[in-house]
Amino acid sequence: MSINTIPQSRGERFPFELVKPQLERVEASIRDQVRAFDPAVEPYVSYVCNTSGKRIRPALSILVGGALGGVKDGHLSIGVILELIHMATLVHDDIIDGAVTRRMIPTANAKWGAGLSVLLGDALFSHALALATEFDDISICRKVGKASREVCEGEIVQTQRRWDLTLTKADYFRIIEMKTGALFAAATGIAAAISGADPEMEAKLFDYGLKLGTAYQIYDDCLDLVGSEEAVGKTLRTDLEKGKLTLPILNLLESASESQRSKLNKRIIDQEALDLSVLVGIAEYEGAIESAVDTGVQMLATCRDHLTDLPESDYKDALVQITRFLGALLEKCRR
Amino acid sequence: MSINTIPQSRGERFPFELVKPQLERVEASIRDQVRAFDPAVEPYVSYVCNTSGKRIRPALSILVGGALGGVKDGHLSIGVILELIHMATLVHDDIIDGAVTRRMIPTANAKWGAGLSVLLGDALFSHALALATEFDDISICRKVGKASREVCEGEIVQTQRRWDLTLTKADYFRIIEMKTGALFAAATGIAAAISGADPEMEAKLFDYGLKLGTAYQIYDDCLDLVGSEEAVGKTLRTDLEKGKLTLPILNLLESASESQRSKLNKRIIDQEALDLSVLVGIAEYEGAIESAVDTGVQMLATCRDHLTDLPESDYKDALVQITRFLGALLEKCRR
Repeated sequence: MSINTIPQSRGERFPFELVKPQLERVEASIRDQVRAFDPAVEPYVSYVCNTSGKRIRPALSILVGGALGGVKDGHLSIGVILELIHMATLVHDDIIDGAVTRRMIPTANAKWGAGLSVLLGDALFSHALALATEFDDISICRKVGKASREVCEGEIVQTQRRWDLTLTKADYFRIIEMKTGALFAAATGIAAAISGADPEMEAKLFDYGLKLGTAYQIYDDCLDLVGSEEAVGKTLRTDLEKGKLTLPILNLLESASESQRSKLNKRIIDQEALDLSVLVGIAEYEGAIESAVDTGVQMLATCRDHLTDLPESDYKDALVQITRFLGALLEKCRR
Repeated sequence: MSINTIPQSRGERFPFELVKPQLERVEASIRDQVRAFDPAVEPYVSYVCNTSGKRIRPALSILVGGALGGVKDGHLSIGVILELIHMATLVHDDIIDGAVTRRMIPTANAKWGAGLSVLLGDALFSHALALATEFDDISICRKVGKASREVCEGEIVQTQRRWDLTLTKADYFRIIEMKTGALFAAATGIAAAISGADPEMEAKLFDYGLKLGTAYQIYDDCLDLVGSEEAVGKTLRTDLEKGKLTLPILNLLESASESQRSKLNKRIIDQEALDLSVLVGIAEYEGAIESAVDTGVQMLATCRDHLTDLPESDYKDALVQITRFLGALLEKCRR
């Protein structure tokens, strides 16, 4: 399957044209990984690998490599490893959420049940971590280990704090930094390390990834409330159904008077009484969605600040362009 | 909790007295790992760590260390890492099997549901692999990665081939070597590498662990058919209910005439018609359980052969003693 035929969420075509040839190599390498598995396991892994995705994490590591003097094999490898970890988390997420389709095709969970999907995620995950040990530099291996631990912890804290009305914005940011930020940050930070960047530049690029991932999650959370299913191509308005309190809702709860908050709490907890379009209407009216967009947009500005010391190149431009692209998506959530 | 108070399966007290102080340190270290997690995740990890187990894998790595000139910190660390991976697989197994209790206390799955248990297993697993990257020697890290990948693959192949009457004995051995043998082999093989053993000795000790783990699984599989729940302290006779074809059954199928095989297949597939005590009676009568015990006993003899070049020591004696202990358990399955 060529990169061109990968189904993407409609509205979200990230500007990765510059690294299209390298992303095709990543795609081929992901397909190759399938062969590392026992023949009996192969078809399952192959199915999950072909359900594909936007390959944002590999694209980021390749772009950082390019911006720091040249894309090396290591940038592609780390992209493949992080993408496998990401795929493992999606397989497990779909079990937890009982999701039936992802990117318009049936999930592993829907096809083969929770049991096999638990194990399939485990196999992808352990394979990714085994691949990470092939780097000669053990510090890369450590960074991959740390990032995957954070992703898992972020998912647990999120699951455990569903329906928890005492969740603070600080808690929310900690969760999405772990859940989504960690792998983005690993992509850009480890890519910088592979290029031999000095510690200061590595730290800046790590934070570029962390903030980009966090802003991406804020976008995803806003979209869940205000997006059009037709335009986005996936089921929306499910976060509150699952008890997930996201930034717009936390903003609304924060700005509410005591009596308003008790009304909101009642609506959120009592699913029967929850008319989501009314809740979204209130959130808009009170500027809670606007404020979440502002937060994401500010993070993206910080991302761009982190890039200023990079030498001028098409790769640097592309890293800037990604923040603008995501910023434009965020702006569309402002209503 | 001291090592003395760890609940163990009744009938299976492995002879680990020699390394009791080191196993207490392993126990303390497992408890310490809990603190590495996010405070919100801690209580869950703590619960799973305290449900405990026999700590066979840490005991093996410590004993091999002792037998090769002295127990080092690395032997304890690798024991902790492999035990965390083992615990992660148990948490996920309990989801797949819908198990409600393990070692007489409620499983994570029963307490918090499949969603949180999926993530809890992931967190333990990723933490273990992150710990493995703390070894300065990347080859240790690689071996841990390889072993965990094999465990996951073994579980997948087993799950995927439930109810599959074309399963061969070769398939069965491959599954249990991956599922159970791999972590035992990692415990003894990596322990040998930590002690700086020559490659030949490392290979022998790796195979000691592999065969010991495989024989242990054969014992577990025989026990499921012929054990007494009261004596063993866990639910038995569930393998065939779950469509798991184990060695005694495969032996029976192999020795059956065509017409007998079609009767057996019918009984196995049609749960309604399955009177397990009759099936076990037939398996005994035909010597199918006896033959499985023989296979396990032969493997244990190979384990002892692998130890002959080790210098005499209490640790070597203990490694021999473990094979005799398991051999005696296996013999009890002969009826």
